[in-house]
Amino acid sequence: MTSEELLADAAVRSWKLVIGRLDGLIASADEAAFERQVVPGGNRMRYLTGHLAAVHDRMLPLLGIGDRLYPQLDGPYLENPDRTHPDPVDTTELKAIWNQVNQKLTTAIEQFSPSAWVERHTAVSEEDFAKDPARNRLAVLLSRTNHASSHLGQLLLSGKSQD
Amino acid sequence: MTSEELLADAAVRSWKLVIGRLDGLIASADEAAFERQVVPGGNRMRYLTGHLAAVHDRMLPLLGIGDRLYPQLDGPYLENPDRTHPDPVDTTELKAIWNQVNQKLTTAIEQFSPSAWVERHTAVSEEDFAKDPARNRLAVLLSRTNHASSHLGQLLLSGKSQD
Repeated sequence: MTSEELLADAAVRSWKLVIGRLDGLIASADEAAFERQVVPGGNRMRYLTGHLAAVHDRMLPLLGIGDRLYPQLDGPYLENPDRTHPDPVDTTELKAIWNQVNQKLTTAIEQFSPSAWVERHTAVSEEDFAKDPARNRLAVLLSRTNHASSHLGQLLLSGKSQD
Repeated sequence: MTSEELLADAAVRSWKLVIGRLDGLIASADEAAFERQVVPGGNRMRYLTGHLAAVHDRMLPLLGIGDRLYPQLDGPYLENPDRTHPDPVDTTELKAIWNQVNQKLTTAIEQFSPSAWVERHTAVSEEDFAKDPARNRLAVLLSRTNHASSHLGQLLLSGKSQD
């Protein structure tokens, strides 16, 4: 691999590591775990899973991969606080959505060339991107990897305060 | 910037964003906030700050920047659970250490060229690196950025469960 391929590869590996850790937590969670709040009064694991699925689903158009799969997650899990909207899908469906969204995304980004990574993401105009080339696709991936890590850290606390 | 420079730049920006958010939380925390546990029975903010400072201090030799500044943080904040060792420094000193370690690290990595990022980190041998060039400096930076994000997510919960 060239050095630019190695740099892009490191970012994709980092994303996959974080998603892999979340996959493990989510796959092994039962109904009770999904209903548990990370801290008393805080977000349920179900909310955080739906929230991350919605944010990752939005990465599909943002990175130019394709249309969103599950825009119906935004109301209950992205635009509003936990427990203000009915849960739109059950636990089995939510787990399937989590897996489908991340698999579609990860399969696509594994094929991106280094030059594809430094192209603009679709939420920035060509004019603004010409002024600030840091608003590229890799910046989106790294930002979303940090966001997922942040909620992973919270999920790792889940239940600890209620023992 | 070339595309490889843009890729390396995105990773450094991502690191600086996470550190900047932690800087804000840590600078504004008083004694009571430092003593507060993220969740009841969990790590204090003081422990997490010392823990992240120790991990980032270890990045100095790991990335070939220089010797460690504060190895004395490892016993109380890295190798052992919270509240099993006396706190080695007071709040003012801990805040100063946090700033000093990250400033030294960030100033150095801002100067790394793309080819410096894909060199091996010092915890991998030349033989092992030849077999697996993914064990490079950028992998360390991304891993530590995710680690810091994970604890940032926990600190953002701090106090919420005790309102």
